[in-house]
Amino acid sequence: MIKTQPRVDGDRLWRSLMELARIGATPKGGVARLALTDLDREARDWVIARAAKMDMAVTIDRIGNIFMRRPGRDARRPAVMSGSHIDTQPTGGKFDGNYGVLAALEVVRTLNEHAIETDAPVEVAVWTNEEGSRFVPVMMGSGVFCGAFGLDSAYAARDVGGRSVRDELERIGYLGDETPGLHPLACYFEAHIEQGPVLEDAATVIGVVDGALGLRWYDCTVTGMEAHAGSTPMTARRDALAAATRVMHEVVALGNRNAPHGRGTVGYVSVFPNSRNVIPGEVRFSIDLRHASAEALDRMDGQLRAFIDRLRRESGLTIDVQQVAHYPACPFDPGCVGVVRRTAERLGYSHMNVTSGAGHDAIYVARIAPAAMIFVPCKEGISHNEIEDADPAHLEAGANVLLHCVLEQAGVASATQPIRS
Amino acid sequence: MIKTQPRVDGDRLWRSLMELARIGATPKGGVARLALTDLDREARDWVIARAAKMDMAVTIDRIGNIFMRRPGRDARRPAVMSGSHIDTQPTGGKFDGNYGVLAALEVVRTLNEHAIETDAPVEVAVWTNEEGSRFVPVMMGSGVFCGAFGLDSAYAARDVGGRSVRDELERIGYLGDETPGLHPLACYFEAHIEQGPVLEDAATVIGVVDGALGLRWYDCTVTGMEAHAGSTPMTARRDALAAATRVMHEVVALGNRNAPHGRGTVGYVSVFPNSRNVIPGEVRFSIDLRHASAEALDRMDGQLRAFIDRLRRESGLTIDVQQVAHYPACPFDPGCVGVVRRTAERLGYSHMNVTSGAGHDAIYVARIAPAAMIFVPCKEGISHNEIEDADPAHLEAGANVLLHCVLEQAGVASATQPIRS
Repeated sequence: MIKTQPRVDGDRLWRSLMELARIGATPKGGVARLALTDLDREARDWVIARAAKMDMAVTIDRIGNIFMRRPGRDARRPAVMSGSHIDTQPTGGKFDGNYGVLAALEVVRTLNEHAIETDAPVEVAVWTNEEGSRFVPVMMGSGVFCGAFGLDSAYAARDVGGRSVRDELERIGYLGDETPGLHPLACYFEAHIEQGPVLEDAATVIGVVDGALGLRWYDCTVTGMEAHAGSTPMTARRDALAAATRVMHEVVALGNRNAPHGRGTVGYVSVFPNSRNVIPGEVRFSIDLRHASAEALDRMDGQLRAFIDRLRRESGLTIDVQQVAHYPACPFDPGCVGVVRRTAERLGYSHMNVTSGAGHDAIYVARIAPAAMIFVPCKEGISHNEIEDADPAHLEAGANVLLHCVLEQAGVASATQPIRS
Repeated sequence: MIKTQPRVDGDRLWRSLMELARIGATPKGGVARLALTDLDREARDWVIARAAKMDMAVTIDRIGNIFMRRPGRDARRPAVMSGSHIDTQPTGGKFDGNYGVLAALEVVRTLNEHAIETDAPVEVAVWTNEEGSRFVPVMMGSGVFCGAFGLDSAYAARDVGGRSVRDELERIGYLGDETPGLHPLACYFEAHIEQGPVLEDAATVIGVVDGALGLRWYDCTVTGMEAHAGSTPMTARRDALAAATRVMHEVVALGNRNAPHGRGTVGYVSVFPNSRNVIPGEVRFSIDLRHASAEALDRMDGQLRAFIDRLRRESGLTIDVQQVAHYPACPFDPGCVGVVRRTAERLGYSHMNVTSGAGHDAIYVARIAPAAMIFVPCKEGISHNEIEDADPAHLEAGANVLLHCVLEQAGVASATQPIRS
């Protein structure tokens, strides 16, 4: 056991976040730094320069993921890895992703300052295009890394201007040599702002993330017949919106009936012809169902489809529903989750189990290595927004938990005896 | 009583409809002839030329309404008037409005052919800008004529290109001299396609229109808070769409609970930010409530507001509802309605009472003179659409009813004794 408990430098971590946030800074205090743009290159260069000052070795793979390595005593051991992403939404904040990368670099800096040699190497990862704003799909770098989809399909993705991922990787100088996935790792920890209100509402500093919700996305189209809102009696109507609102209501009810780990959201609605005095003839809308349990999510899917079948028969309208995405629920490795919980406990931080509702690189990495995440509160749960904010003390706490998770998993070598018991 | 029952020439009426429909004809078989455009001028000129061939005298008032007069035996008697409009929607049909004007001209042509002299003058009206597509409000010409709003406010209305009603009236040569409203009339009949499915569904040829539904329009805005669809638990949401769909459902339920003369429609919906994985923060939508009885419409209004008050308290969201238009229910003159019913009966046409759900010039004219309308079926109830269609036999039947309503109200002078009993 380490007796003197090393701690990260919270002020330095905060300053590094503010410095990185200058690259792509927006007038409203946010960051607009889309994947594989010149700004992304600038931020990548900045991160690598910082790692180089810490004598870390840098590897880049063919999808542009960056791995920065601090050697361990035993070079044959796979690395204990931590990281996140530095691309942002078009109106993104300073903390989403960036915090996970800079907290990991702060952990390395702290290890260096305390001259702590770990048994296993420690690596910091920067994953390419987590946000998916410019190139679909989201979590592209970690997805290719874990084999969720192929390198060629990722290369072929194009932005609205027609530029491909491969061309843009080459242009900004981040088309590396290493084959994605051929990078051994022992386990993976990712620190991240929660992007939700649960920790703040519970006045709790550390979220011990036990997994991520599974997700099913659908496109639903209700087709009726547009008609005059005055001269068409109620009984003669084929009102697409009247039927669509019943589905929308059921989507939210499905989330409510499956609390606390269920979610049901309609975020997108398009009404045709969308005129005040015309009964809608067609309504298209999105459905987003999530749950922490695969069985529960399947059940929600079945209930949604049964509801739509009933409504189709009752209304006589055409109701088409197509699943367009499915990410299974991802329980994190109990061992890694336990390390996060015990570490938070040991360091004296308030903590609680939470399940991530959002997508993160850790969810893909968990497919090939034991993984877990550490959440810290963000102000009012707001993220993907220029006003995204977080408390420096919370960010410091999360980085300290990350530091001690890394130490516990990497093992402390005999050379660091002075700070061991 | 007239013994030999004169009849309109249905073929001639049909040919006139097809001829007028060439002005602004669309590739899909409809008509695009917006108010006060060059095409509107061309159509007005065509109608006036047709009236001139029948020796009718033409007056134009300061809002561009056209009155075409066939003298009666007693010049001091106010005219029996019939008419409608010849402007169309941007994707309008051949019959909406045009039928009412051409049926009235066909009535005059028939009177001429039968050398029938009426006691009162017979006039045919073409009202300016009934559709309101280019210039708001709808039913502008008849609205100014009956004093529903002032000439200056109508003049000031501008299209999206910034051109005013006054300038466009002047440009196309239809800025007349007569003060609107200073045009005596004894009563008013308007023939029109139903623009709804009731007559066709009931296999009935003549709709005896007993009045028009009252209407209340509202703009409703629900304000919640946009948040991540994954990381925000159901209990922490302020989902504007979830609340809005409950109001939308209640609007339709209000129509259903007030059958057969109630209507409830949401035609327009706008969701912000309208993204698949973001809980909507704001939803704006329109509400359209109608009823044949003023008391019932007031009750629907009260129930809507009570529902929204309850929902506001339950959801904690901000729900703003503003009434943006109110047309009271308009029962037509029982005398005129009776004339239509008796005439349809006497001519042997199937008929039924209907209430107009749409707006018509007759509704404004009814404020200053006894008025009624004659509906004929339109195919599948479709109107305001290029595929708008009607059966020539039904159009002829409606014109025959109009002819005999005009004869009954105008009175047949002694000079026409040969065709009287």
